[in-house]
Amino acid sequence: MIYITRKATFSAAHKLERKDWSAEKNKETFGKCSNENWHGHNYIIYVTVKGEVNPETGFVINLTNVSEILNRKVISKVDHKNLNLDVDFMKDKLPSTENFAIAIWEEIEKEIKELGGTLHCIKVQETEKNFVEYFGK
Amino acid sequence: MIYITRKATFSAAHKLERKDWSAEKNKETFGKCSNENWHGHNYIIYVTVKGEVNPETGFVINLTNVSEILNRKVISKVDHKNLNLDVDFMKDKLPSTENFAIAIWEEIEKEIKELGGTLHCIKVQETEKNFVEYFGK
Amino acid sequence: MIYITRKATFSAAHKLERKDWSAEKNKETFGKCSNENWHGHNYIIYVTVKGEVNPETGFVINLTNVSEILNRKVISKVDHKNLNLDVDFMKDKLPSTENFAIAIWEEIEKEIKELGGTLHCIKVQETEKNFVEYFGK
Amino acid sequence: MIYITRKATFSAAHKLERKDWSAEKNKETFGKCSNENWHGHNYIIYVTVKGEVNPETGFVINLTNVSEILNRKVISKVDHKNLNLDVDFMKDKLPSTENFAIAIWEEIEKEIKELGGTLHCIKVQETEKNFVEYFGK
Amino acid sequence: MIYITRKATFSAAHKLERKDWSAEKNKETFGKCSNENWHGHNYIIYVTVKGEVNPETGFVINLTNVSEILNRKVISKVDHKNLNLDVDFMKDKLPSTENFAIAIWEEIEKEIKELGGTLHCIKVQETEKNFVEYFGK
Amino acid sequence: MIYITRKATFSAAHKLERKDWSAEKNKETFGKCSNENWHGHNYIIYVTVKGEVNPETGFVINLTNVSEILNRKVISKVDHKNLNLDVDFMKDKLPSTENFAIAIWEEIEKEIKELGGTLHCIKVQETEKNFVEYFGK
Repeated sequence: MIYITRKATFSAAHKLERKDWSAEKNKETFGKCSNENWHGHNYIIYVTVKGEVNPETGFVINLTNVSEILNRKVISKVDHKNLNLDVDFMKDKLPSTENFAIAIWEEIEKEIKELGGTLHCIKVQETEKNFVEYFGK
Repeated sequence: MIYITRKATFSAAHKLERKDWSAEKNKETFGKCSNENWHGHNYIIYVTVKGEVNPETGFVINLTNVSEILNRKVISKVDHKNLNLDVDFMKDKLPSTENFAIAIWEEIEKEIKELGGTLHCIKVQETEKNFVEYFGK
Repeated sequence: MIYITRKATFSAAHKLERKDWSAEKNKETFGKCSNENWHGHNYIIYVTVKGEVNPETGFVINLTNVSEILNRKVISKVDHKNLNLDVDFMKDKLPSTENFAIAIWEEIEKEIKELGGTLHCIKVQETEKNFVEYFGK
Repeated sequence: MIYITRKATFSAAHKLERKDWSAEKNKETFGKCSNENWHGHNYIIYVTVKGEVNPETGFVINLTNVSEILNRKVISKVDHKNLNLDVDFMKDKLPSTENFAIAIWEEIEKEIKELGGTLHCIKVQETEKNFVEYFGK
Repeated sequence: MIYITRKATFSAAHKLERKDWSAEKNKETFGKCSNENWHGHNYIIYVTVKGEVNPETGFVINLTNVSEILNRKVISKVDHKNLNLDVDFMKDKLPSTENFAIAIWEEIEKEIKELGGTLHCIKVQETEKNFVEYFGK
Repeated sequence: MIYITRKATFSAAHKLERKDWSAEKNKETFGKCSNENWHGHNYIIYVTVKGEVNPETGFVINLTNVSEILNRKVISKVDHKNLNLDVDFMKDKLPSTENFAIAIWEEIEKEIKELGGTLHCIKVQETEKNFVEYFGK
């Protein structure tokens, strides 16, 4: 068993705000992340796939294929977009780093499996100071 | 003459859009940076001050003071904000990296001089792949 | 279950030296880290907390609270200090990266639990070339 | 149980090519990594060792010794070399990142054990965008 | 006048070897960089363009265009290639970092000027420890 | 004319304190950098040399020689040392980043010239947030 990771980056806007809460409660819970007019980040995503090494190719999985899935299902939908407003797979979800990592997992897990790998981890880095890792249910 | 640099970071939303242009012309000129619903970045700012070393302190300038000016005049106004909508010193300016660097220079130059230093450069890094440097007029 | 990590940095002096050993034995065991007049590092600490995502907030834990604990219990005591002489929670301990990581765990674990999270890992990076990870007993 | 990691870097050439395959099949499988005239990377290796902290020294293992093993058994053989042609422990192996990580594990595991530690992970980073982690069989 | 920089990366093989010199003289002059069977790097290129800010767009130059020129004239020719054997604009040149930076300048300067900018600097980083900057004749 | 830079790193302790000043004045001027029991940093030094490219070698200067000078005259004297107490070339100087950069310049300039290069810049990075650049008198 070996683990291989692909990194991708994109830039997006978001805010943490529940419409069923008052501005005060949003501010108290989400602090500056609830700024009404949005803020944004250069996000970094790491996709880790595990599996056995194929003795014919020396690969667990062809990273070109992982990259293609990640670009088609995630990056092309979020890069230079608004995570609250523009992204189908984040609809009706609070775009916290946690929820975003889980949503990416759900977007790509099936296609990674069809390639013969097992999705192991989605890591999302929001700023230089904080990141989330999700290993599935 | 010696040069000393202080780095600071913040996260903000913005878009590149001229309201006097059609959506098509904005798209053609600014590409994905014109996304109607905003996008955002983790910005990095480098402030470089030049001067002679004070033989009493070994300092060109006390970086604690540079940091206080930068936080009060810039970071506190832009962190977790929208550069188009929320920032007084960017009002009526296209928030390109170039215009933003020049605006920061104008915000802090006078106070740096009052501390006894000479502002040399404002560098603004918008993503890992692009940055701007402004050395004044 | 999801994992969220907060990073913090500080600068400190230390040395690796046992007073019950000769200078020769200290030198032989600890090499240049035993320099009598100290040396120092820019340390990086990563605190990882695990838990379920709270569906109300989208958070495992509010990182603002993690950061407050980390600053109060660790960073404020070690930043620009001497790990051998100035730090209560390192008293009578050799300030190796290993012992330091374990001591940070013991400093903050209880308060992280009171916030509703489970401390998962303390990672301490001493230089660009070496780091330690501690996952508890 | 605590985990300690040492990082090392080197630069090497390689290509992914099976001589029993046609140029077309190599190209189709390995893409630009099959360029006939080689390409290369600045590789980064992370060696992670786990163990109990020795109460006498505060160390899991002396990193100076880990570094010596890593340099003698790996870095001195691969730095500024060709992984396909010049490296004894890669002979007759496709130099994929996966196979290379496994080969490094096999090179150093025994000597790490003789030092009193347990080799936990070999991580090999080939570019800023991809890396492999191997934890043994 | 303002300066804007675009970064790009690629991986390539090369060696430093003069065919009109003996193996001994090559070894003595170029050290491990003369390894007969090549070695390689993950190179980083920074292209800096200077100019006045266009008040209509807030841009010195559209980085999308800089990126297109850089990819067409340089990256597509060197990525996953051998700098000694595969690259037209390095033909008959020793692929030192210095010569490579100068050659990139000559490749792209004219097209940058046609876009309305002035090429200011080509920086080539060969490893984390060394880089070259060329500002033209 | 082309510019080539070599990077080196080391770890050291220091403090900013004038013995002819009261503790209060030291504290007021140097803040937490005046901590009586020292603190420390992982310093990064960048040495930039300028010159013409030697057409025989493609080099401005052989970086192996720059590295040897830097190690012998600077790194071996400061690594895992105390900049106030242990370093001959810092004797009787306040170890501010500014004074330290100037002292390194004075240590190595002559030998760089003897190699045929011209020392252009000493950059000293003390933390991720601040650095100094010195270009000579």
